Amino acid sequence: MADKTIPYKINLSEDELPKAWYNVRADMKTDHRPILNPGTLQPVTAEELAPVFCEELVKQELNDKDRWIEIPEAIRNFYKMFRPSPLVRAYCLEAALKTPAKIYYKYEGGNTSGSHKLNSAIAQAYYAKEQGLKGVTTETGAGQWGTAMSMACGYFGLDLRVYMVKVSAQQKPYRRAVMETYGATVTPSPSDTTAIGRKILEMDPDTSGSLGCAISEAVEAAVTTDGYKYVLGSVLNQVLLHQTVIGLEAKTAFEKIDEYPDLVIGCAGGGSNLGGLMAPFMADRLAGKRAPYFIAVEPASCPSLTRGKFAYDFCDTGNVTPLAKMYTLGAGFVPASNHAGGLRYHGMSPIISQLYHDGFIDEARAYVQTDVFKAAEMFARVEGTLPAPESAHAIHATIEEAIKCRETGEAKTILFGLTGTGYFDMAAYMQYNAGEMTDYVPSDEDLARGLASLPVVE
Amino acid sequence: MADKTIPYKINLSEDELPKAWYNVRADMKTDHRPILNPGTLQPVTAEELAPVFCEELVKQELNDKDRWIEIPEAIRNFYKMFRPSPLVRAYCLEAALKTPAKIYYKYEGGNTSGSHKLNSAIAQAYYAKEQGLKGVTTETGAGQWGTAMSMACGYFGLDLRVYMVKVSAQQKPYRRAVMETYGATVTPSPSDTTAIGRKILEMDPDTSGSLGCAISEAVEAAVTTDGYKYVLGSVLNQVLLHQTVIGLEAKTAFEKIDEYPDLVIGCAGGGSNLGGLMAPFMADRLAGKRAPYFIAVEPASCPSLTRGKFAYDFCDTGNVTPLAKMYTLGAGFVPASNHAGGLRYHGMSPIISQLYHDGFIDEARAYVQTDVFKAAEMFARVEGTLPAPESAHAIHATIEEAIKCRETGEAKTILFGLTGTGYFDMAAYMQYNAGEMTDYVPSDEDLARGLASLPVVE
Repeated sequence: MADKTIPYKINLSEDELPKAWYNVRADMKTDHRPILNPGTLQPVTAEELAPVFCEELVKQELNDKDRWIEIPEAIRNFYKMFRPSPLVRAYCLEAALKTPAKIYYKYEGGNTSGSHKLNSAIAQAYYAKEQGLKGVTTETGAGQWGTAMSMACGYFGLDLRVYMVKVSAQQKPYRRAVMETYGATVTPSPSDTTAIGRKILEMDPDTSGSLGCAISEAVEAAVTTDGYKYVLGSVLNQVLLHQTVIGLEAKTAFEKIDEYPDLVIGCAGGGSNLGGLMAPFMADRLAGKRAPYFIAVEPASCPSLTRGKFAYDFCDTGNVTPLAKMYTLGAGFVPASNHAGGLRYHGMSPIISQLYHDGFIDEARAYVQTDVFKAAEMFARVEGTLPAPESAHAIHATIEEAIKCRETGEAKTILFGLTGTGYFDMAAYMQYNAGEMTDYVPSDEDLARGLASLPVVE
Repeated sequence: MADKTIPYKINLSEDELPKAWYNVRADMKTDHRPILNPGTLQPVTAEELAPVFCEELVKQELNDKDRWIEIPEAIRNFYKMFRPSPLVRAYCLEAALKTPAKIYYKYEGGNTSGSHKLNSAIAQAYYAKEQGLKGVTTETGAGQWGTAMSMACGYFGLDLRVYMVKVSAQQKPYRRAVMETYGATVTPSPSDTTAIGRKILEMDPDTSGSLGCAISEAVEAAVTTDGYKYVLGSVLNQVLLHQTVIGLEAKTAFEKIDEYPDLVIGCAGGGSNLGGLMAPFMADRLAGKRAPYFIAVEPASCPSLTRGKFAYDFCDTGNVTPLAKMYTLGAGFVPASNHAGGLRYHGMSPIISQLYHDGFIDEARAYVQTDVFKAAEMFARVEGTLPAPESAHAIHATIEEAIKCRETGEAKTILFGLTGTGYFDMAAYMQYNAGEMTDYVPSDEDLARGLASLPVVE
C-alpha cells in the first residue's frame, strides 16, 4: 500500500459540484443519427415528442449544439444532499491483487436509491414540476430507476406511476416497498391496465416481462392520462446528459490529485452510467488530446454491443416509441429471466452506440454472471462495499486489467464506475452463495430470432 | 432556506479523522459501578473476563483512567473507507417544518453495514486478529451488528459465527445473506447448538428469541470453542468507547462552521450510538462548560430508561454474563415481536444509565412505533434518505423539538444521530404503508413480571 499521500476518498466541496451538464454530442464528429417517428420514419420533431416527454427534456433530447447545459439551482440543491460523490482509491483491492495498478472508483451508491439513477431522476422530476404536470409514468427493471424516480417525485410532490418488470416485482418486494414509501404506485408489467399490456399478455400469459415491454405500458399510460408525461431512466440522450455529473466530478477529483486515468471502465445496460462517467474524458479524445482507453462491459446474457447489430430499432417491445440507431438485439429479444440485475435491455444508448461504432469507445466485453458475482464477492470482502450486480461487471473487468498490470509491471491508473449497491439483489447473492447460480448465453439462433424483429429502415 | 453559507454536508478531511477514542469514564464524577462476577457477585477481574473477551478489549472495558485511547493505524485505515462521515444540515426538513431551528444530523448509514455498528466491529475484529484468534462469535438482532461484524471479519480473514434472533432471521433473509456473502455462519437463536439454547427451547419451543438469549448462546459458543472469543455490538463500555468517533467528528465539524448544538438527540437501544454521539459534548457538561441538553429516545415497547429500574442485572437471558448496574426491564423481559428494528434489549449501557441517573442526560422519551414510522416517512420524502426504524426514533424527537421552536420562535441548533438506513426494514415499512402496523406498550403487569427476574444484589 504505497502512495498514501493520496487519500482513500477524494471528496470535492459543494462549490466544486458541476454547474452545467456536458453535452458530448456537441463535440462528436459523427453525431449519431436522428431518432425517427415510428409512423413516418422521418426524423422526429419536438412537436411529435411533446405528447410523451416534458418540454424542456425534449429540447435536451434533440440538442446537439450546446456543449454545456446549465443545471437549475433547485436540482443543484437536491444534488447537494448526496453529491459530490466520492472518488475512492481502492487501496485494499490493489493490495489483494498485488497489482502495481492504481485503481479508483467513482461511488454512486451513497444515496437511498442506491445508484446513480437519482442524478437524472431529480432533473426529470424538476422539469415535470416546472411544466405544471400532475405526475409522470415510468418503467423500472431491477428497481433502481423506479426508486430514484420515487424519491425525486416524493421530493417535488409529483405523482408517480411505475410499471415494474414482473419478474423483478416478484423477486424484489422490498424494492417495491421503498417506492411505495416515497408515495409511488407500482404495477407489475405486463399488466391489464394498458392496451399494449393486455396484447402482450394475450400472446404470452406467462411472460416474466421485460424493460422494453414496461416502457410500452408506461408510454401508453402517459399519453392517455391528462397532466402526465413519461420519463425514462437510461438510453435517451437527456439521461446520459444528466449523468455527466459523474464524469465531471471524477475529472475534477483527478485534477486535484494530479492524476489522469489510463483506463475508464463502466457497465453498460442502457448506457447512461457509462456515458456519464466517460463523457468528460471522451471530450479529450474527441479533441485529439491524451485520453483514456474506454471499456464497456455488458452481460453475456444480453450482449447488445458485442453481438448485436448497429441498426434502427424501437426502444420498446410494443413498438410505440420512436426508432433509434443503436446497437440492438432486436426489440423482440427477451433477456433470460435468470439474469440478476438491471442490464436486461435489448438496445443501447445511441450516443454510446455511435461512439463505439466509430472506434472512440475502444472495447466492449461480455461476462457471464457467475464470474461477475465472484468479482463482487471479492470486492465486498476487501473494499467493504457490497456492489450491485450491474456494477460488478465493471469490477470484474477492472480486476482483469489489474492482473494484467501485475503481469506486465505497468502501473496503469484505472477508473471504474461503482454505480450502486447490492442491497436489493440479495436473492441473487443467496443463489450465488448456495452455488445455485446458472449462466445463460444466448445461442446464435436466439439472437437471430431477436434480430428478425428489426424494422426495415432505409 | 436561509443560512446557505453553511453547506448541506460538512465533510472532514482524512487528516481530521480522530486519532484516539474518548473514554468518557475518565471524566465521570460518579463512575458507574463495576460489573460483577455472576458467581461471586464480586467486581469482575480481567482474568475472569479473559475466557470470554479479547485481552485488549478487556483492558478497554475496565479502563476508567485514561481519557484517550489511541486508535491503531489498521483501524484508522479501515475507517478511511467510510469515514469521516458527513455532518448534514437538514435544510429541507427545516423548510418542511417551517422551523427557525437549525437541524443537523450525523449520518452513519453510508457504509454497507448500513449503520454505525461498523465503527466498533472493525476495532473488535482487529484486536481478535492481533491476539491470533481463529474467529469470534456474536449475536445480532435486527442484523446491523452481525452485518458490520461480518464485514470486519471478512476484511481481516477471521471466522465469524453469528447467533441471530429467530424472529429477525425469519423476517430478514436478505440481511442474513449479506452476512453470508462476507463469509459468516448464521444460526437462528435459540438453537440446539448450545446448552442454553436447548434449555430455552425446552421451556418455550415457540419463542421468537431475543437479544439477551442470543447473547447467552454466543458467549457459550465462544468459551467452549478453541481459538474463539465473544464480541458484542452495544451496551459494553468498549463499544461506547469505539463509537465516540461519531461524536468527535461531529464536534470537529461544528467547530469548522463555528456552531455548537443546543440539543443532542439519539435513539437508545443498548446505548452505544447515543453514547458515542454525545460523549465529547458530555465532556463539556462534566467540565462545567456550556453543553447541550441531551435527550435519549427509546421505543415504548421496550422502555428501559423511562420505565425500567436502575439495578444490577444480567446482560443476557441465560444469566451467564457478568452483572451490570444499569436501567433494566429485567433479563427475563422478552420484548414484543411486533416491534420493528434493533432497540429490543432489556438493559442499557451502564455508562448511559449512570449519566441518566445522575442527571447528566437530561431526558428520556419513549415513542410508539406508528409515530416513529410517520416521522421516518416524512424524513425520507423531504431529506431523501430512508432511515432505519431505530434512527427514526431520534427523528421523531427532533421533529417535536423543531415544532416547539416554531412555536416559541427560538432558533435552536439541534444535532441528532442518523445511525442507519432502512433498507433491511422494508417488511416493517410495508406494514406501515398498508396501515397494518400495531403498537405495543407493555402493561405494568408485563413490566413487573420482567423485573421479578432481577437478581438480588446488595
